[in-house]
Amino acid sequence: MPELTREEVASWDEADPLRSFRDEFELPDGVLYLDGNSLGALPKKTAARLRQIVTEEWGRDLIRSWNAHDWIRYPRRVGDRIAKILGAAPGQVVAADSTSVNLFKLLSAAVGLGGSRTVILSEEENFPTDLYVAQGFSGLLGRCRLQLVPRTALVAAIDDDVAVVTLTHVDFRTGEMHDMRALTRLCHERGALALWDLSHSAGAVPLHLDRDEVDFAVGCGYKYLNGGPGAPAFLYVRRDLQDSLLNPIWGWFGQKGQFDLKLDYEPNAGVARFLVGTPAMLSLAAIEPGIDLLLEAGLDRLRAKSVRQTEYLIGLWEALLQPLGFSLNSPRDPERRGSHVSIGHPDALRIDQALIEEMNVLPDFRYPDNIRLGIAPIYTSFAEIHEAVTRICRVMSERLYEKYSAERPEVT
Amino acid sequence: MPELTREEVASWDEADPLRSFRDEFELPDGVLYLDGNSLGALPKKTAARLRQIVTEEWGRDLIRSWNAHDWIRYPRRVGDRIAKILGAAPGQVVAADSTSVNLFKLLSAAVGLGGSRTVILSEEENFPTDLYVAQGFSGLLGRCRLQLVPRTALVAAIDDDVAVVTLTHVDFRTGEMHDMRALTRLCHERGALALWDLSHSAGAVPLHLDRDEVDFAVGCGYKYLNGGPGAPAFLYVRRDLQDSLLNPIWGWFGQKGQFDLKLDYEPNAGVARFLVGTPAMLSLAAIEPGIDLLLEAGLDRLRAKSVRQTEYLIGLWEALLQPLGFSLNSPRDPERRGSHVSIGHPDALRIDQALIEEMNVLPDFRYPDNIRLGIAPIYTSFAEIHEAVTRICRVMSERLYEKYSAERPEVT
Repeated sequence: MPELTREEVASWDEADPLRSFRDEFELPDGVLYLDGNSLGALPKKTAARLRQIVTEEWGRDLIRSWNAHDWIRYPRRVGDRIAKILGAAPGQVVAADSTSVNLFKLLSAAVGLGGSRTVILSEEENFPTDLYVAQGFSGLLGRCRLQLVPRTALVAAIDDDVAVVTLTHVDFRTGEMHDMRALTRLCHERGALALWDLSHSAGAVPLHLDRDEVDFAVGCGYKYLNGGPGAPAFLYVRRDLQDSLLNPIWGWFGQKGQFDLKLDYEPNAGVARFLVGTPAMLSLAAIEPGIDLLLEAGLDRLRAKSVRQTEYLIGLWEALLQPLGFSLNSPRDPERRGSHVSIGHPDALRIDQALIEEMNVLPDFRYPDNIRLGIAPIYTSFAEIHEAVTRICRVMSERLYEKYSAERPEVT
Repeated sequence: MPELTREEVASWDEADPLRSFRDEFELPDGVLYLDGNSLGALPKKTAARLRQIVTEEWGRDLIRSWNAHDWIRYPRRVGDRIAKILGAAPGQVVAADSTSVNLFKLLSAAVGLGGSRTVILSEEENFPTDLYVAQGFSGLLGRCRLQLVPRTALVAAIDDDVAVVTLTHVDFRTGEMHDMRALTRLCHERGALALWDLSHSAGAVPLHLDRDEVDFAVGCGYKYLNGGPGAPAFLYVRRDLQDSLLNPIWGWFGQKGQFDLKLDYEPNAGVARFLVGTPAMLSLAAIEPGIDLLLEAGLDRLRAKSVRQTEYLIGLWEALLQPLGFSLNSPRDPERRGSHVSIGHPDALRIDQALIEEMNVLPDFRYPDNIRLGIAPIYTSFAEIHEAVTRICRVMSERLYEKYSAERPEVT
């Protein structure tokens, strides 16, 4: 690779208006981290916030913290901050449970509202665990079914039987992004509800859930939101639907007058009825600093940088990696792309291992042949992208991947 | 109160074989903490463990931690340690989600196994949120129903329609403890399954789930386990039932070959199929130090101390509080009692507030008239019990409660 490019790239980083945000994260020396789409990096302020909730709130104020530090409303307060990232007014988002559990709740609510419509429609390309949740829910309930179609057949399949269409906004393998506004409108025209999984878009792509009249959304807190491993997920329910919906899992945090401990459940008003059990306070508190950084950086600026970076990366692929046998598994059009770029190769799994073990580059691998290169514009630099591609070239030229197995280790 | 007693009490603490464990906890100066049955205190090692997982695992090793630090099996590893507290062999417990979500999963599994039996049986005295979960599940499914009876009618109600009996082992108001072994046996004799909520017993009362042939159990991590606010809950499924049961919420942590990301769900072998989404790693890591301390102290020694302490407290009630109009809402027989003592009073709510605000005593209040005095034998001292009763007497003699409202503040 020409030296010229490296210098040019350094000048881009210097001119980057978001450059200072990188200093807000703990990033280990020498590691090229391109997996913020799987586990976001640690904001420096998070360690301090955790010390505070552990020492001062739990340790010192003990049970009083539920009131003194308003723990009781924490899932809703964090939800309202996430709402800003989603383009949603307050009172429509809570942070709680996992993405899968939240999806279960909202599918149930949606089907409950669907009247005689009994189909949950999704695409075969959807994140498998989302499909598992829908399969399991359909099997449990008996009176609805999951219909799976290829992406190309999706629009035609939204018919009078469909209660809810559930899709992931940005595809976890390819980074391909749906047109949320258009598809949601189409669902509504055909009498169906729209439920979006925003796990690969929240924090990376500007979202407009209110403007786009989205009915339901879920998403995870540990990718571009930088909320920490297994951070509580979020769910969004459009305000005008909330009070006609039932959460299938009735717990005391969703109950009206939670501490009255009455014998019969009466759902709380608003989105709070989608809470269930006691919130995992430590994990919940760890989400906040990352959200604040994203809001401070601004989603439009982050998106602009992300597009420049993925475009640059695709340019490098074209010049340097395509000749080495790598395919581009992500869309060329940045309007149809999230914030990661997938490149394919027949030896992708072995190359991925060599990058991690030999090169200190951390992408990740997704079956069958995707090496995902995640851009987290709040901390990823242009120089890192340049260097990562340089190291990929070295893995190929020195055949460093050959000593790794093409068999995936089994995780049990 | 006679000085003699105070001295005598101090000598009990000095002779207490578990005395050193108190130093393992951060307890704020001057506060008499009698609410470990609601939120356990902070083990000193927990702050260090959290620093480690935040800085070294999340911050430094990033995505590699799923393998390098075996995060992937963490819910099962923590589960196996909790199992020791529950009297259960490994491979039957996972730490995940909330108690309510876990109860939902196990009720569904139990009803699925129940054949033509369609009743979920519980008692009106059960913790309301457990009843909410059962109500919600029954309403969702349609083909089963919750039958609620008073405790006195429970045994007679276990008939041929009952698929599962779900009870809380130690009553959250009174501390009354069921005979788990006898009731489980009775359920089995009548063809029903037994599901126990151990939230108020795990860590305070020796449990023998395997010996007692319990089918299912759930419980929370933040009371006597000292796992931190909203710590992940646990669930237990008897080994020989596991592979014939279905978790209703199908997520990738319950899937066989999780990272194969196949289109169709196939439940993992064993208790792992009751996992759902990505575990809340920070909250999960915070559970471990508290569990280790309990195991080191030994459940039998903890129970022996707890019984001595609740007996002592009831003795003080009899001598000093009963004359002031306090009732004893807990059983007199220690064999039928958990580790908290409830005292009642017509002004209980106001007295509770005065104790917190004026006296630095932290019990808690449960409707309608229970002041719960929680004994966490791993850190509660005899001197604290003595001092707490002294302060209750002072609240009464100086009528310090009169300025507080008898109206509960509404939590929304």
